[in-house]
Amino acid sequence: MTPNRTPKEVREYQTPAHGVFFTVERTLFKGRSRYQKIELIQNASFGRVLLLDGLVQTTDKDEFFYHEMLVHPALALHPAPRNVLIIGGGDGGALREVLRHPVRKAWLCEIDGRVIEVCRRYYPWLRRDLADPRAELVVADGNDFIASTGDRFDVVLVDSSDPVGPSTVLHEKAFYARLKGLLKPNGIIAAQAGALLYHQDQHRRKYRFLKTMFRQAAFYLCPVPTYPGGMWCFVYLSDAVPPLKSKRRAIPSGLKYYNAEIHEAAFALPNFFLKTLGRLR
Amino acid sequence: MTPNRTPKEVREYQTPAHGVFFTVERTLFKGRSRYQKIELIQNASFGRVLLLDGLVQTTDKDEFFYHEMLVHPALALHPAPRNVLIIGGGDGGALREVLRHPVRKAWLCEIDGRVIEVCRRYYPWLRRDLADPRAELVVADGNDFIASTGDRFDVVLVDSSDPVGPSTVLHEKAFYARLKGLLKPNGIIAAQAGALLYHQDQHRRKYRFLKTMFRQAAFYLCPVPTYPGGMWCFVYLSDAVPPLKSKRRAIPSGLKYYNAEIHEAAFALPNFFLKTLGRLR
Repeated sequence: MTPNRTPKEVREYQTPAHGVFFTVERTLFKGRSRYQKIELIQNASFGRVLLLDGLVQTTDKDEFFYHEMLVHPALALHPAPRNVLIIGGGDGGALREVLRHPVRKAWLCEIDGRVIEVCRRYYPWLRRDLADPRAELVVADGNDFIASTGDRFDVVLVDSSDPVGPSTVLHEKAFYARLKGLLKPNGIIAAQAGALLYHQDQHRRKYRFLKTMFRQAAFYLCPVPTYPGGMWCFVYLSDAVPPLKSKRRAIPSGLKYYNAEIHEAAFALPNFFLKTLGRLR
Repeated sequence: MTPNRTPKEVREYQTPAHGVFFTVERTLFKGRSRYQKIELIQNASFGRVLLLDGLVQTTDKDEFFYHEMLVHPALALHPAPRNVLIIGGGDGGALREVLRHPVRKAWLCEIDGRVIEVCRRYYPWLRRDLADPRAELVVADGNDFIASTGDRFDVVLVDSSDPVGPSTVLHEKAFYARLKGLLKPNGIIAAQAGALLYHQDQHRRKYRFLKTMFRQAAFYLCPVPTYPGGMWCFVYLSDAVPPLKSKRRAIPSGLKYYNAEIHEAAFALPNFFLKTLGRLR
């Protein structure tokens, strides 16, 4: 690529009339896999910025918000998380957080081997963590993998893309029913669930079926500055372990976002969201 | 203004290498006051967007996050908030939230009369609220007003611009010392304090003096999607009323964000911020 062809900035429309831009210091990678356009740029404020099909997936500066809050609420509450499955998460941030816990085995099931290749090259933690004897990389469609695996899991983490577009299937009832069937006793699922500000219809629909499927089904929130709307939703699902005021194992040291107070606070939802979920009139 | 001269979008750099853009459906107002450039545009996703010196101040879609969380934590905890002073807040969002409470008098002290004029024209609540017999508009520098007023206040709300640039004085120790002198017994101050992600140095410095000045000095957080970094900081200050687990008067009905659980949750701070404040090693 010649220097002149390097775009000066990348832009993401977060709504049809609004979005964000990042100036490009350097394009580290630009290519296309079977599934999507992959782009990794260097930005002076956010460090490496990974975009899939033009949408920001992760930046060095703020990835810890998202990855800590996808992983630690479930992992810190499970009494003995031995087998952990991550669906998606090719950038390795979720795997890195999982391996802070005393797990026996962590499967990373990413559909796009090309994303793994690129991230392995640029994210040192992914190189290190894939060499960890506890980690097993599976390059496969998450939905196919869970239909065929003979393993059972203490915690399943869904680190998919958004509930619109190609990942839609990972936000459907059939997918969650299958996941539930793979849980061991005391099992917990945590899944990213889209933007607080923008995906209200999907939240409503999803909550309607999740609350009939799991004894404990709760949304929780975490800021992710570079994601649309800045505030992100996750779901916590379990038949055994309530999300609030449950006994916590030791929290790993060195975390930047998660702590015991943040855990409880994350489940407090604003009025407009309670209305969306039918929990407030 | 001819149609061709209307800019297609407004851009705000939130860092030197990153920012947001809003496409402009219509420019409602564009002008310059003695203090700043004032711009009000219509955007298809966020409604009216008010910019001062090119920085987004408030949008129809997400102003409620900010205004509810500036006002209600303090107002809901004060046992009898009769006299309330708002410094800044020319868009009227804070005044609107204050008047939901049984106050006797609410002062709106805004430095820029031109901002009031523009907002009065485009924000129906400001027209309505300035006609409320409880509201008193003072067009003055907040710092001058508090040096000269003979009134005393139950709650003071600081709805200033950020702790960089022209509003710097409203983030200094001398300003808070003066405010403290104007509080009645049981008095509470709440003030916007900048971006969680970007103003860490100012937060550290501010917390150092605030905790020596007030028995209760706490930061709290609230998402504001169109503000830099998406997560915003506020300070809660009082010698009498602790911010947590205090008795709450009835919360006004019709709020979109604030509720009792959100109140307690807002004071939970992430590890990196606790470190900034010197509350975690």
